[in-house]
Amino acid sequence: MSVRETTGQSQGIALSDLDTALAGVVGDARVLDSRSVADRATSFWNSAPMQARALLMPSSTADIGAILEQCNGAGQSVLTHGGLTNCVTAVEPTLDDLVLSTEKMTDIVEIDPIGGTAVVEAGAVLQNVQEAVAGEGLYFPLDLGARGSCTIGGNIATNAGGINVLRYGMMRNLVLGLEVVMADGSVMSSLNRMLKNNAGYDMKQIFIGSEGTLGVVTRAVLRLYPEPRGRQDALVAMTSVDRVIAFLGLLQREIAGNLSAFEIMWGSYYRAVTGENGHRPPLDREYPFYVVFQAEGSDPAADDARFEAVLEQAFEEQLIADAVIPKSAAEARAIWEIRENFEPALIAPPYYLYDVSLPIRHMAEYVKAVEENVDAQWDGGTCITLGHMADGNLHFFVAPGEIGDFHPASDRCVYEPLQQYGGSVSAEHGIGLEKLRWLPHSKSDAEIRLMRSLKRTLDPNDILNPGRVVGS
Amino acid sequence: MSVRETTGQSQGIALSDLDTALAGVVGDARVLDSRSVADRATSFWNSAPMQARALLMPSSTADIGAILEQCNGAGQSVLTHGGLTNCVTAVEPTLDDLVLSTEKMTDIVEIDPIGGTAVVEAGAVLQNVQEAVAGEGLYFPLDLGARGSCTIGGNIATNAGGINVLRYGMMRNLVLGLEVVMADGSVMSSLNRMLKNNAGYDMKQIFIGSEGTLGVVTRAVLRLYPEPRGRQDALVAMTSVDRVIAFLGLLQREIAGNLSAFEIMWGSYYRAVTGENGHRPPLDREYPFYVVFQAEGSDPAADDARFEAVLEQAFEEQLIADAVIPKSAAEARAIWEIRENFEPALIAPPYYLYDVSLPIRHMAEYVKAVEENVDAQWDGGTCITLGHMADGNLHFFVAPGEIGDFHPASDRCVYEPLQQYGGSVSAEHGIGLEKLRWLPHSKSDAEIRLMRSLKRTLDPNDILNPGRVVGS
Repeated sequence: MSVRETTGQSQGIALSDLDTALAGVVGDARVLDSRSVADRATSFWNSAPMQARALLMPSSTADIGAILEQCNGAGQSVLTHGGLTNCVTAVEPTLDDLVLSTEKMTDIVEIDPIGGTAVVEAGAVLQNVQEAVAGEGLYFPLDLGARGSCTIGGNIATNAGGINVLRYGMMRNLVLGLEVVMADGSVMSSLNRMLKNNAGYDMKQIFIGSEGTLGVVTRAVLRLYPEPRGRQDALVAMTSVDRVIAFLGLLQREIAGNLSAFEIMWGSYYRAVTGENGHRPPLDREYPFYVVFQAEGSDPAADDARFEAVLEQAFEEQLIADAVIPKSAAEARAIWEIRENFEPALIAPPYYLYDVSLPIRHMAEYVKAVEENVDAQWDGGTCITLGHMADGNLHFFVAPGEIGDFHPASDRCVYEPLQQYGGSVSAEHGIGLEKLRWLPHSKSDAEIRLMRSLKRTLDPNDILNPGRVVGS
Repeated sequence: MSVRETTGQSQGIALSDLDTALAGVVGDARVLDSRSVADRATSFWNSAPMQARALLMPSSTADIGAILEQCNGAGQSVLTHGGLTNCVTAVEPTLDDLVLSTEKMTDIVEIDPIGGTAVVEAGAVLQNVQEAVAGEGLYFPLDLGARGSCTIGGNIATNAGGINVLRYGMMRNLVLGLEVVMADGSVMSSLNRMLKNNAGYDMKQIFIGSEGTLGVVTRAVLRLYPEPRGRQDALVAMTSVDRVIAFLGLLQREIAGNLSAFEIMWGSYYRAVTGENGHRPPLDREYPFYVVFQAEGSDPAADDARFEAVLEQAFEEQLIADAVIPKSAAEARAIWEIRENFEPALIAPPYYLYDVSLPIRHMAEYVKAVEENVDAQWDGGTCITLGHMADGNLHFFVAPGEIGDFHPASDRCVYEPLQQYGGSVSAEHGIGLEKLRWLPHSKSDAEIRLMRSLKRTLDPNDILNPGRVVGS
């Protein structure tokens, strides 16, 4: 997954006084005017030319402080850009917006193997951080399909989830310290390096998952783990959700400390991404459910044996119908590609991506309701389903099978049956602009009031990612 | 550990209009006037009679809403009481304060084995929650010495830590949802049950660790784990901090997924709590360092073997000088008692308890500096040291060895050498009143400004635990 981007050098549109002042902060070479900005794609999901008043590439926290101070004074809206893999229309600027890109702030400043911490700049790409700490025998467990593009700053702003949440938690659990530039340009430094720090309110929590609306993350202290010695992976086919739940329970009891990922794919998804134009299917394509899962441990031989024994037990208990255990890293990569690379399913736009969570025990019933809604709405509509099952998190791609803007209708298919289960309209992608009208489905009035009150307190001029999450 | 308390039925002092209105909310039987309040001990640490205007024992969230609405209108200060095991003078009321006790709100409302969640009221005692979920084959991993008295509400308000943070995180990581009554009496319900929910700002984070200054926690959704099948414990003696760090590294590499606690005791502590008037010492008392640690796993026979093999390796690498592996649950309990029951060390008041954190690699140097400060300050002063080593968290008991109020001098001994290491004056106990003047040692001016701004926004009349954490 990489952002479709072309870089141009064209110049042209005259800069206003504010723009001149901002160019003075970062230097002319670090400014793209609106014409040059248009050489970039809007986002990973939208290849249309990016529209923005200008794009700045600051190289330091101080730069960002100076930029925001001026923008706050001028009431200039600012959108922060990381890897542009956001899924909820949070990063798309208009010609009125200034873009602050963290692409020149990619340093991995320090790795402390004893404390198990890394200090990194916001623009560092997730995969680069993973690889840099692996070089020191350490492990940064946040992992998601967008690893090659998404940035640590974006991961923090969105409280990213991904495939290892079950064992290691979301990004929130992996951030020990944070440096943030506030809307007025002041710097809030909270670069704690300890696992435990209860000296006063933990202010960093406010910014994690705020989607850039409360401050701009510039630097973070990340929590690292020892690198696992070995991994076990498998892809299994199953015949009912009850069996999937029972199998998850079995794994949680039997290899609890090692289980790091447990991903469910409905048959609809598996069939959409495998076959002629997709991945090679390692298991027959007619099963209703597939699970790909992973364990990580420190005693590879014993862990392998235990992993296979548990799979054997699952066969005996008739929980799983078929299974494949990869015999090499390449084979393991191939089964994960089925889960992570969903591009073969995206052949006929429009399609709409969803990211809901709900208690696991209601999942089967809920997915059935969504499928029925999609069937009732469109003759040729399809709904393909997958998710981080153990976290209660499901993703859907809904494809109406007709050309047109069916987003609102599709939203109703997915969100309306969700509320009765106390579900969330966003498990990990966030709200952005896209889900704004559905926020009251998952948050109480009191919570939304409190969110707005916080936004007013921290960004009174509403310059930071305006309109996102809390509206305007 | 239990709160020293005597309950009386005395009545007498006339109630004012506010008190009459409040009594109307909870009923006369749920009010103690100031005379009856004095039959209670002030806290676990202070056996003097409690002083308060009155104490209310509401039985519902609605009660608490009605109480706070009235108190907010009248500008009446309210202190929330859980198990009173707080270590930082956060719960001690004055005759001007109203006390809101959660002691009648102890229900364990629901346990969901599939979702791995429990819904509990704020006044539920930690140990009761642990035992109730164990009855369903589940595990609530927060654990600390005060488990028999401290409440879930208090654990949330203080973001409690304890002995299992290394593996499961602090209370913040174990709270999925929260119901909070705000200062104005309105209820913010955020009773999420999913591991992942990024629908808008995660407002519960603001209240976790706010020490009751931003709202009153009334109910929570807790995250549960599968109950471990087996546990391994050991007490080892070591001759240098470098060896302790190397041993921790060895365990993290070799039994990473299972390691759940790693507690260091300096020789000063071990000698103070063992011997004639203390615990029976399972290892000789002359070593400079002791570590008690625990692993939890799902395959007891294999885990036992691996645990012993790793200990053997540590002997061979000369990391540990002596070790004892308990042969029964009772023996395991006995080695943990050494770590948890520190009362034998507390024979000569005054003594002052500390709770700092700093990067592990600076610990040895820092403890030496504190010991030298204590030696230089008092002829017969002692400093006994222990802590949650893997979390970077140390506790000290400083005893000047003379009668008098030496708290400020003792604070200087401990906190002044801490700042250069970027340490925190509170790893897990919080700030309360006791550490207020030291907060700027661990928080930047920008953080403190933001904390105060949050307090003003959420509790404009400063009625909730006033003076604590952010001052007045």
